Amino acid sequence: MSVVRACGVTGPHVPFQSLEVVRREPGPKDVVIDIKYCGICHSDIHTVRGEWKMPPYPLVPGHEITGIVREVGAAVTRLAVGDRVGVGCMVNSCGECDYCQRGLEQFCRSGVWTYASRDYDDTITQGGYSRALTVSENWAFPLPDSLDMAKAAPLMCAGATTYSPLKRWGAGPGMRVGVIGLGGLGHIAIQIAAAMGAEVSVISRTLSKKDDGLALGASDYWATSDEATFKTLFASFDFLLCTVSSVQNMGDYINCLRPGGVLVGVGLPPDPISFPMNALSRHKSISGSLIAGRKETQEMLDFCGAHGVEARIELIRATDIDDTYKRVVASEVRYRAVLDVETIA
Amino acid sequence: MSVVRACGVTGPHVPFQSLEVVRREPGPKDVVIDIKYCGICHSDIHTVRGEWKMPPYPLVPGHEITGIVREVGAAVTRLAVGDRVGVGCMVNSCGECDYCQRGLEQFCRSGVWTYASRDYDDTITQGGYSRALTVSENWAFPLPDSLDMAKAAPLMCAGATTYSPLKRWGAGPGMRVGVIGLGGLGHIAIQIAAAMGAEVSVISRTLSKKDDGLALGASDYWATSDEATFKTLFASFDFLLCTVSSVQNMGDYINCLRPGGVLVGVGLPPDPISFPMNALSRHKSISGSLIAGRKETQEMLDFCGAHGVEARIELIRATDIDDTYKRVVASEVRYRAVLDVETIA
Repeated sequence: MSVVRACGVTGPHVPFQSLEVVRREPGPKDVVIDIKYCGICHSDIHTVRGEWKMPPYPLVPGHEITGIVREVGAAVTRLAVGDRVGVGCMVNSCGECDYCQRGLEQFCRSGVWTYASRDYDDTITQGGYSRALTVSENWAFPLPDSLDMAKAAPLMCAGATTYSPLKRWGAGPGMRVGVIGLGGLGHIAIQIAAAMGAEVSVISRTLSKKDDGLALGASDYWATSDEATFKTLFASFDFLLCTVSSVQNMGDYINCLRPGGVLVGVGLPPDPISFPMNALSRHKSISGSLIAGRKETQEMLDFCGAHGVEARIELIRATDIDDTYKRVVASEVRYRAVLDVETIA
Repeated sequence: MSVVRACGVTGPHVPFQSLEVVRREPGPKDVVIDIKYCGICHSDIHTVRGEWKMPPYPLVPGHEITGIVREVGAAVTRLAVGDRVGVGCMVNSCGECDYCQRGLEQFCRSGVWTYASRDYDDTITQGGYSRALTVSENWAFPLPDSLDMAKAAPLMCAGATTYSPLKRWGAGPGMRVGVIGLGGLGHIAIQIAAAMGAEVSVISRTLSKKDDGLALGASDYWATSDEATFKTLFASFDFLLCTVSSVQNMGDYINCLRPGGVLVGVGLPPDPISFPMNALSRHKSISGSLIAGRKETQEMLDFCGAHGVEARIELIRATDIDDTYKRVVASEVRYRAVLDVETIA
């Protein structure tokens, strides 16, 4: 057992403060990681503020973690001391249920989330806004050498969240993909879809980020503030990845799909989505996705390493977290804030 | 050109009356069909009443047609005089567009619907509540000998509408299929899904039709009026076919899907459907469907012939149409009304 410095909150509407969290001694299959960077995900904010459901407090969020292996358990085979690794939204899974057996550990019947979740030793997990973490070797993923450790941190959630549906639905040459929203998720999705060989369009509220979208790999860029956009884009896309957290007009987006097209929503709007059923008649689908399984997470990292996909980040200090949360909610961050964990006092 | 007796309406809210409609002389690739039976589909009612959009009047509805070929054009190769055939929701397609080339003629860029649609000779199509019809041989489908001509009529819409998504999404052994609603569509869907080898459950408002549902091939039957149903059925189905025309609680049905499961809606509720996006997170999808292409329509008929799938019908007379419409809307018909076309005066 070790006590490590962390940043967390003691309730839903209080500022971040320095905290200590307890990390277990590594079991035979565990590794201890010195955390270097942790991305700030919108999910952190929803959880901290109790916007989804009331979490246990004190709470240390953070599930876009990169760091270096400091210690390995006696039976660890996949990792060695000194390895550069990433840890994402999960820290344990049973390995035995039907989903684990199919490589869909994200649906594990007793999966453990990286924070605010009950781990197998009956403790409540605490996340990556902290100096170190003890985790099953199954949930620490080697980083390709080519990836920068700070810019790779957001891949652990945003990369997995966008790679998985793009892969599942066959993004590649000859496929026209639209990415709805250019933010933390969207800016990774554009890069991945383009690297897969798809023709990528961005659909955003305005054209204010157009230059960035094109630089990230999009071939064109559309603003929903222009009322001609939905007419122009009618029946244009094989696949739409909706990364925004509020969609009032889902039917308009469905109409942008070609027959047989699929829209996957990963932005998880708090309000229900709504559309006319017959908008889907032409073999169109709306589908969901949830991070990625273990094998697919490693595949995503290797893919990003091979294709130079990294987050565009703003590196922040621990004292900036509260302000950064406000800026994330206001869509001011371009495009992912990453906490430099060394700044945790 | 020939003038044939028909039943139709002259406006959205007037009774049916006897009318005459003009049928073109058969072109080289046309056939003339003496219509024997025509199913009463809920779509007929929506169209007649102008509930979707205002159709051209006078209007003769009907797109669940069976009859006998009376005359064939000079270049007809697929059919001969005396053949028993069915005609469904379409009477023409271009054969050249991308969708026609892929066997998805239902999405043809210039497809012609069986009624209230502009045909290639610039006339407005009139449907099957009439004594005869001239139609492209491409849209008249030979009926297997084993099918009763009256009981087969509803297959031309309800059969195609339910067979296509069940086939597309792989209904078969080892798959648990739920059919939402036991009406004109649902009672065909149960039979087809069971004949495909799937385990079939029915989800209905009450248990009033339970005996029928089980007799049609369902292994179990659930009432949404029982508040335990959605808990019991949580994460139970690989596939749900929603055949009802009003769904207030789509999220409850999505929750009945297993991870990776698909719900296809074919009931086309007039009001938008609504559900929380995160209900789909576990790789679940909502999808649409629209009748079937030519090849698949014939495949459906052959499948129904081989497996004894027919509609359970109430045979009605032309003078009963107005009353039958009221009974269809009130869900009183068990399970499809079929017009005996000989009764058209």
